[in-house]
Amino acid sequence: MIGLSFHHVAIAVESIEATLPIFESLTGHSGSQPESLPAQGVRVCFVGDRLELIEPLSPDSGVGRFVARKGQALHHVAYAAPDVQAELDRLAAQGYELIDSAPRPGAFGHHVAFLHPRSTGGVLVELVEVSDHP
Amino acid sequence: MIGLSFHHVAIAVESIEATLPIFESLTGHSGSQPESLPAQGVRVCFVGDRLELIEPLSPDSGVGRFVARKGQALHHVAYAAPDVQAELDRLAAQGYELIDSAPRPGAFGHHVAFLHPRSTGGVLVELVEVSDHP
Repeated sequence: MIGLSFHHVAIAVESIEATLPIFESLTGHSGSQPESLPAQGVRVCFVGDRLELIEPLSPDSGVGRFVARKGQALHHVAYAAPDVQAELDRLAAQGYELIDSAPRPGAFGHHVAFLHPRSTGGVLVELVEVSDHP
Repeated sequence: MIGLSFHHVAIAVESIEATLPIFESLTGHSGSQPESLPAQGVRVCFVGDRLELIEPLSPDSGVGRFVARKGQALHHVAYAAPDVQAELDRLAAQGYELIDSAPRPGAFGHHVAFLHPRSTGGVLVELVEVSDHP
């Protein structure tokens, strides 16, 4: 295999509106239009290509519980793959534990899937299917 | 300003040797030769261009206390800047709280500086001076 491309890192935040200006001023990149993903219980926004802010849509969502427990913090890393299902099959065969056994819709209409932190060194890892990603 | 370039995200780990194979198999990238940075109390290793593993050299280092408190977890994000001192001055003037008021040596001989999470939405942010970084 050639190797997966790093796609983004996500910060779980209480409020995109409160946190976005901090990272816009810091990095000099404007935030994307926030997008709601009700199936994942989050609103998301990108600052530049590589930093995602994710805000829980409700306190009892996974990200809501994460923020309640840890405060605002780095939440996951994501890698781009041309065929996420093939990667899930490869990783499951190697003993990685999947949260999603098949891709589901994510930000920008991309299909995504998550691996369980138990099998990835304690860190939540997302795979993003992006056919045109460098 | 043009905007800072995303440089890397770091995971604090108990052991590079134990965690590196997980991310090598996952991403298909081989790890770099681990490098000790005694001044920062860590050993570091890169997996691909964007993922850094940092291991505490002792339990009473900053990263050692982080791992003891939180377990293995995402630790910081880093942005590349052509002139870190100029960025520190700009950010301090804008009210960001600096951990380092001047750059100091980091991995691969780069000069680096950290911003305090209190002023960056709860997330530790590093600036890396990389003149030839894309």
